[in-house]
Amino acid sequence: MDKFSVTIMPENLTVYVPQGTNLINAAKTAGIDIESPCGCRGTCGKCQVKIINLGGVDCPDSDYVLACQTRVEKDMVIEAPQFSRLTKHKVLLSSEEKESLLEHGYFKDVEVNPLCKKIYAELDKPDLTDSMSDLDRVRMHLMKNCGIEDVKISISALRKLSNVVREGDFNITLTIVTIKDSAEIINIEAGKPDSPSLGLAVDIGTTTVVVNLIDTENGKIIDSAGTYNKQSAYGSDVISRIVYCDENDNGLELLQKAVIETINELIDTVLKKNKINKSDIPVMVCAGNTVMSHMFLNMPPTFIRLEPYVPGASKYPVVSSKDLGININPDAKVITLPSVASYVGGDITSGVLSTLMSKSELLTLFIDVGTNGELVLGNSDWMVSCSCSAGPAFEGSGITCGMRAMDGAIDWIEIDKESMEVKVRAIGNKKPLGICGSGLIYSLSEMLDSGIIDRAGNILENGSSIRVRMGNEGKEFVLVFAKDSGSGRDVVVTEGDIKNLIRAKGAIFAGIRTMLQQVELDVDAIDRVYIAGGFGNYINITDAVNIGLFPDLPADKYAYIGNSSVHGAMLVLLCQEALYEIEDISDRITYIELSIGNKFMDEFISALFIPHTNLNLFQRCGV
Amino acid sequence: MDKFSVTIMPENLTVYVPQGTNLINAAKTAGIDIESPCGCRGTCGKCQVKIINLGGVDCPDSDYVLACQTRVEKDMVIEAPQFSRLTKHKVLLSSEEKESLLEHGYFKDVEVNPLCKKIYAELDKPDLTDSMSDLDRVRMHLMKNCGIEDVKISISALRKLSNVVREGDFNITLTIVTIKDSAEIINIEAGKPDSPSLGLAVDIGTTTVVVNLIDTENGKIIDSAGTYNKQSAYGSDVISRIVYCDENDNGLELLQKAVIETINELIDTVLKKNKINKSDIPVMVCAGNTVMSHMFLNMPPTFIRLEPYVPGASKYPVVSSKDLGININPDAKVITLPSVASYVGGDITSGVLSTLMSKSELLTLFIDVGTNGELVLGNSDWMVSCSCSAGPAFEGSGITCGMRAMDGAIDWIEIDKESMEVKVRAIGNKKPLGICGSGLIYSLSEMLDSGIIDRAGNILENGSSIRVRMGNEGKEFVLVFAKDSGSGRDVVVTEGDIKNLIRAKGAIFAGIRTMLQQVELDVDAIDRVYIAGGFGNYINITDAVNIGLFPDLPADKYAYIGNSSVHGAMLVLLCQEALYEIEDISDRITYIELSIGNKFMDEFISALFIPHTNLNLFQRCGV
Ligand code: FES
Ligand SMILES: [Mg+2]
Ligand SMILES: [Mg+2]
Repeated sequence: MDKFSVTIMPENLTVYVPQGTNLINAAKTAGIDIESPCGCRGTCGKCQVKIINLGGVDCPDSDYVLACQTRVEKDMVIEAPQFSRLTKHKVLLSSEEKESLLEHGYFKDVEVNPLCKKIYAELDKPDLTDSMSDLDRVRMHLMKNCGIEDVKISISALRKLSNVVREGDFNITLTIVTIKDSAEIINIEAGKPDSPSLGLAVDIGTTTVVVNLIDTENGKIIDSAGTYNKQSAYGSDVISRIVYCDENDNGLELLQKAVIETINELIDTVLKKNKINKSDIPVMVCAGNTVMSHMFLNMPPTFIRLEPYVPGASKYPVVSSKDLGININPDAKVITLPSVASYVGGDITSGVLSTLMSKSELLTLFIDVGTNGELVLGNSDWMVSCSCSAGPAFEGSGITCGMRAMDGAIDWIEIDKESMEVKVRAIGNKKPLGICGSGLIYSLSEMLDSGIIDRAGNILENGSSIRVRMGNEGKEFVLVFAKDSGSGRDVVVTEGDIKNLIRAKGAIFAGIRTMLQQVELDVDAIDRVYIAGGFGNYINITDAVNIGLFPDLPADKYAYIGNSSVHGAMLVLLCQEALYEIEDISDRITYIELSIGNKFMDEFISALFIPHTNLNLFQRCGV
Repeated sequence: MDKFSVTIMPENLTVYVPQGTNLINAAKTAGIDIESPCGCRGTCGKCQVKIINLGGVDCPDSDYVLACQTRVEKDMVIEAPQFSRLTKHKVLLSSEEKESLLEHGYFKDVEVNPLCKKIYAELDKPDLTDSMSDLDRVRMHLMKNCGIEDVKISISALRKLSNVVREGDFNITLTIVTIKDSAEIINIEAGKPDSPSLGLAVDIGTTTVVVNLIDTENGKIIDSAGTYNKQSAYGSDVISRIVYCDENDNGLELLQKAVIETINELIDTVLKKNKINKSDIPVMVCAGNTVMSHMFLNMPPTFIRLEPYVPGASKYPVVSSKDLGININPDAKVITLPSVASYVGGDITSGVLSTLMSKSELLTLFIDVGTNGELVLGNSDWMVSCSCSAGPAFEGSGITCGMRAMDGAIDWIEIDKESMEVKVRAIGNKKPLGICGSGLIYSLSEMLDSGIIDRAGNILENGSSIRVRMGNEGKEFVLVFAKDSGSGRDVVVTEGDIKNLIRAKGAIFAGIRTMLQQVELDVDAIDRVYIAGGFGNYINITDAVNIGLFPDLPADKYAYIGNSSVHGAMLVLLCQEALYEIEDISDRITYIELSIGNKFMDEFISALFIPHTNLNLFQRCGV
């Protein structure tokens, strides 16, 4: 087969690929990942690159093309702009989270009783009158000195036991993992321990994966790393990834490999940085939505997508890391947190766990604004949940200049009501590249307040501002002009984007209303609202209420809790009882299927207005 | 590197091997296994082959050479005689064992409650109001209809669950393994089961490996296969194999691979023959001595050989078959039965389990005459054990014409006291190739009774028989002349062989005496004696007492119980309680180290006489 050269600028990297390769794969060969949220279907428009030389001929004025739809037929030089690239996510952990988790929420009342512990043991030495086996000697020590009965041992720990015991002259350090009262020796070191007892808490998001390395003795986060989920190459949302699994041979294997690679790279980063051996990690707790959990475990997700939406499992077995290909101790225990239903996953039970709402008398509303918009309402007596198919607009997906909360993402804006001048702030003090969730909420709220849009989301003719104009896809409002942006292109919000955002916020609000009706409660019965999810660093509640995303409750009832999914995973790592608690949460939450009946659809249609068609619902915020 | 051709006769198989390859490895390349019990050290003399053409030149009168010491430097044609070959063992199961085990001994009182069961389940079908996960649906069914709570599931079963459930239209068959009250789903089939519930019981002998395929619903042996342990290539006894591990890089890996391959080939044979899928085998129970168990699990056996003889473990973890490379269901549970000490292994606890002695008031002596000669004495109140380093003479090893109990092995002889004519019988009605354990006991006893040897084991000058003569290694007695043998060589018993056998029988008898003294009991206190081990089809007790191998008790107190190691493994497979029982046996047996003090050595020296220096001990048999 013929091969052609593809040179990627500005890096000036050249690779040789077979004729017919698409440019996304060509770039991947060079180690450059191009965005492809639609799974290379040519529909998302996120994979734009410029061809600057084709077959030796310069193309000075060429327009952007879709990398996924462009195949290599000649030698070429392309420019892959920053906005088309998957970049490493900045991990957005607030500084307080870097401190001990144990000073917050649920954690405050929790005695640290982690899943893994290191125990230093000085064993009695054998002689002809005491030739008890090495393992029995260890067991005897644990029983007598630590009150640990019936301890098991992993096969790889057992295989090295005899030599390590003698290397340490019968003084050894045991790493013991205890899951639901069943203790197992996972690792053995000669002599005293080299490192503290360690574990990993992982949030497997559809978009972003975060790995936290935890000192399980004191609950501190030693290090944290996050990046985009490599599965994004097969589709930005769970449904398109399931479709990819179903329509491609080895589809599931590819998707599993992608998420495992993502996690392994993050693990590798934090372990290398902190000079920690793989064998020193005996346990990992993972939280993800039901589709992510299935794919992580290599379970077919097919039936999650098909009515009546039945997942393969909601409680997952504890698996050895070697059975998944996770690069830590081969016998490390990998715990995948339980889900409630196909669209209320382990990320949600984990978030609920982290809020302590399942143990509180206060009526709590938990909202995770991700792809679906999952809601949980309840207290220690009862809990209900639903998933409202909000779409990923607040994660920046399906929005012209939308992007995730990473460097260069606008997360705050202000519009001067007189001059229509716009102030923006981008994450990392970078030149703006696009807009993330919190920036979109501000945009909508500010555009409404300054009369740029009406309550139906239409951009009004407003000759007074050069920022309102006709674009390729209809009316648009320019937040940042090309000269000030980091991409060399205008950062705009189109009328289409606004309609998308209204649908997204409408779905979440309709979900809240439907759930409240189901349990026959009024919105005022809610004592507190926890907002979790990936908007960015924070979310401005007043603006979110102003656009009708969240119900009109006093601002002090709201709290933004960030990535509650990984918090729950940490809690499970640090507290053996939390694993029982989260299984109980998964059992106790009643799932409400919104597609039954017309209630949700009626509520949704009423919510396609800013803030709502029924303004009585938003009296408090002064509408 | 230069390659030369090696042609092996009579098969006329030619292989090309690098210069310097030894003939054992050259033959192996051609698929022909040559005996090498000394681990190719050139000391056992069992690997004899004849070079019949060297570099194109015929060598008509060449003598036998050691294949292990002969390296390929030219093209060659060799003859590998039958007596130098490892042949597939005939499995020596008495016909009653082919019947249900449950009619015998311990088994009689046992309710079949096997480790694995198949359960057919008709699940409720899901709809939008009941979208419980597939796994929860299965769990609910098992709880409601079978009283099975808290069932686990293996990851590979879980991975196929959703598709199999739908393939069977929500009717499925579950294979559940229950080990110590913890139940796990190991396999799932669509619809009704194709085969009964199955399990494997395996005896991992130093010399021979036996695999029994069991229908766990009724306890019947469906099929059985046995062959030599491929580890024999690295040494015939456990000590030389440990030395091989310690002295060679990857030594342990090679030895593990050898035994796993041996077991896999046997499994493959029985599964193919009975048209059974690998995935249909969810559990395997293995009994082996401590060294075999360590090597099987890939645990270093080094310290077993070194004072104070400490094994890595005496209770072994349950391991997944995929972690060992056993070709059955990848998540099948492999149970390795617990041992007592370095030289009293899982084959002995398994044998003890099978005799029911740990539950009986009768004082029982259990004797396994293998390489070591392991003894257990006791009843339901107490048990003691020891291992008396008898050497493998009764397995045919270290005996000039010794061989294992397989086709062609002499297992019975009779010497006419007048004519000195010898009648022999060989297993399988073949021409005699050598002598196995029971044949050696007969030989010794008959040679004594007919005056060919004296009580010290010396061959007497007896000019009246052409069978007594001077051989290469001193005096010898010819049992079968070359013209009547299957090997074309005389089958002889040398004076050296007789001394070897006397040492072996002396060690066992001395072990029995030492153990009795330790518990301050007289031989007459013994209510019954169970003889286990690999002599052959059976053992003649009168002759065994006659030569002083066993104590002088009435013949009706003796019972030959054959391969009790595999019987115990079967019992564990068929009866969940038996696993608790055998762990209890392993805990309760007190190990007596014979190398402490002089008692054993004194007894041993007294026993180097036929039957004994103290003839008072053998009054009953009329000495
Ligand atoms: S003498 Fe050759 S293998 Fe033993
Ligand atoms: Mg999330
Ligand atoms: Mg045996």
